[in-house]
Amino acid sequence: MPHGGAYDSRVTSPTNDPTVPALRVVVAPDSFKGSLDAAEVARCLAAGVRSVAPDAHVVELPVADGGEGTLDALAAGGGVRTVVVDTVDAIGRPATARLGLSADGTVAVVELAEASGLPAVSDVRLQPLHAGTRGTGDLARAALDAGVEEILVCLGGSASTDGGAGVLRALGARLLADDGTDVPDGGEGLARVASLDLAGLHPRARAVRWRLAVDVTNPLVGERGAAAVFGPQKGAGPADVEFLDAALDRWAGVLEAATGVDVRELPGAGAAGGVPAALVAVLGAETERGSTLVAETVGLPAAVADADLVLTGEGSFDSQSVHGKVADTIGALAAAAPVPPPVVVIAGRVLLPVAQAREAGIAAAFSIAPGPIELDALLDRTAVRLTEVAAAVTSLHLAGRHAGR
Amino acid sequence: MPHGGAYDSRVTSPTNDPTVPALRVVVAPDSFKGSLDAAEVARCLAAGVRSVAPDAHVVELPVADGGEGTLDALAAGGGVRTVVVDTVDAIGRPATARLGLSADGTVAVVELAEASGLPAVSDVRLQPLHAGTRGTGDLARAALDAGVEEILVCLGGSASTDGGAGVLRALGARLLADDGTDVPDGGEGLARVASLDLAGLHPRARAVRWRLAVDVTNPLVGERGAAAVFGPQKGAGPADVEFLDAALDRWAGVLEAATGVDVRELPGAGAAGGVPAALVAVLGAETERGSTLVAETVGLPAAVADADLVLTGEGSFDSQSVHGKVADTIGALAAAAPVPPPVVVIAGRVLLPVAQAREAGIAAAFSIAPGPIELDALLDRTAVRLTEVAAAVTSLHLAGRHAGR
Repeated sequence: MPHGGAYDSRVTSPTNDPTVPALRVVVAPDSFKGSLDAAEVARCLAAGVRSVAPDAHVVELPVADGGEGTLDALAAGGGVRTVVVDTVDAIGRPATARLGLSADGTVAVVELAEASGLPAVSDVRLQPLHAGTRGTGDLARAALDAGVEEILVCLGGSASTDGGAGVLRALGARLLADDGTDVPDGGEGLARVASLDLAGLHPRARAVRWRLAVDVTNPLVGERGAAAVFGPQKGAGPADVEFLDAALDRWAGVLEAATGVDVRELPGAGAAGGVPAALVAVLGAETERGSTLVAETVGLPAAVADADLVLTGEGSFDSQSVHGKVADTIGALAAAAPVPPPVVVIAGRVLLPVAQAREAGIAAAFSIAPGPIELDALLDRTAVRLTEVAAAVTSLHLAGRHAGR
Repeated sequence: MPHGGAYDSRVTSPTNDPTVPALRVVVAPDSFKGSLDAAEVARCLAAGVRSVAPDAHVVELPVADGGEGTLDALAAGGGVRTVVVDTVDAIGRPATARLGLSADGTVAVVELAEASGLPAVSDVRLQPLHAGTRGTGDLARAALDAGVEEILVCLGGSASTDGGAGVLRALGARLLADDGTDVPDGGEGLARVASLDLAGLHPRARAVRWRLAVDVTNPLVGERGAAAVFGPQKGAGPADVEFLDAALDRWAGVLEAATGVDVRELPGAGAAGGVPAALVAVLGAETERGSTLVAETVGLPAAVADADLVLTGEGSFDSQSVHGKVADTIGALAAAAPVPPPVVVIAGRVLLPVAQAREAGIAAAFSIAPGPIELDALLDRTAVRLTEVAAAVTSLHLAGRHAGR
């Protein structure tokens, strides 16, 4: 029986064709929470690309949205090395925390959750009024001492509601009560602060560029403020929330008196217990979308502009993804390129319709699910499936490129 | 907070670019068994293509593998109309069955399962020795009377093990015992057949081209033969299998005596209870791969050669898919095209690694599963997900085409 016959010579790899230049692929995924970190996801995707395009030039740029895990992603990407700094945790206990430094030493990455995070103090009763951000300030001071020109502060995951006072104090500022004495750390100190003494501020504190990765738009105070919205998850009861909200308002007044800057209405000032309030008013910090900031830090804009194909990924591709998350940023970067490369999202779940993805500059999104499957089973196979779907996407792209139409 | 900013103008649809010619897409899926027939799947895929490429020229060519359901696929595709013929079922009860006729009337499609199928006689006790294929012969006779030049016989789903004797008898042949009397219908008759009288054969029976869609390679007799392998599912016990195997062997001898053709070793002669044996020996029929035959019937080779992108689909894309099934045939057709278009499989389950798919000329395969999901839930969403994934694939193809590299 003539099965196949004349049809038996099938597709040859386009990469064998010397007339087609090597494919340039950027793989820039976020982490798959509960499964793989961003660097591991990037490795899987890159392996898939290379399995069908062995000659491809693949750039692995694991990224993050600027919150917890960002330092890990940047360090894993190889562009940032970490040094360990002696500091204190959110309730003042001795601790160590990692500071990220760019290869050329000009940029520091300070992840607030490293030194002032909630997990490190969850072994004791939460102290919403006392917890502060001195540890984060210690990291920043180490960065200033190391001579950096720019400090990227990744907010998120904080244990404190101190309006960033701890950061300023670690950098040499003093928060004084009416009687001229230093107020205590944490939100409780803000309730008594009368003036801010910046005479002892680190000499380079205002000489460097401060960039704050923020992914919320909450203001410092009020019903959408730091205390009301994020206080409860840090242990603040209703009375604590009211106390902290008033303390932050008082702090905003002191900051304004000292700097002329009113941060009460600043979108995002309510992030991480109000850290942006102090850093914007005193240090001239800029708040930026976290995923964009991370993308720029790892050199994603140039890499995307120069790519033939861009693969990103995250656990769930949904409406949040195209509102300030990694996929959104990458879609925007690709759209801004002179020759926009296709951007493909490879996700655990794909919940966003194609039409909406396209509006965000994402050409397509595919799930790693191979068919009907339970969550646990899919989590077990995440690495294998990431590689397979990346291979399929690359193969399709190559086939279209080879067809040349 | 500057969210987005300069990046906010995203991808415009490449189809709006007058310098890019309209995309030509062929959608040629098999059915999703238990969910949607091939024509419905084709409609969903086409809708997905058009959702992102409204100007695309989309050709819907639902296909099948040549077995049960092939006539439905061909009729749904519009290239074949059906007429109803009065006939008998596999055990001789009056029945009606559909005959397919091409638009120009030159080609008939006879699906064995229509008249001689197992489901139609499963209301009574199975009669493995008595069941036959006269009904299929009636359909063929109607086709000959209608003046066709070619008869495509889709095998599969038969209730009988009669070596195709019923088909010949409906066309006018006589199977005679030693005493010159006609033997009974079914395999039991073959056990007594001594000679074949072809004097009364329909005058056009040998004037037309017979093409048999076969998707097995089993021989007529022996341990891989029609009785041994397929007999049990038709109700044959061990003794019946032995009886039928001997009867088929006897029948092969009679056929050889009458025609000079030995069909005992012919690959595929064991399909459908041995129907190819009679049709090859007496009528000069050719056995062919079912999916290839269907593809040619619907004009797929020319359509694929002229396409920029080909989408196919089936319930499960696995190792069977690239051994004689629809995806395999389409992969081969694409590979044979002067400019091979990418072929993408969209399936309920994707079980075949990309590397093996590529060897079969399939650029990529994607599951319609949007993430972890149960089978029933996915079946409920098959139509929507087919459309979404087809849209994603088309979008990616367009984006790569637009990038032009």
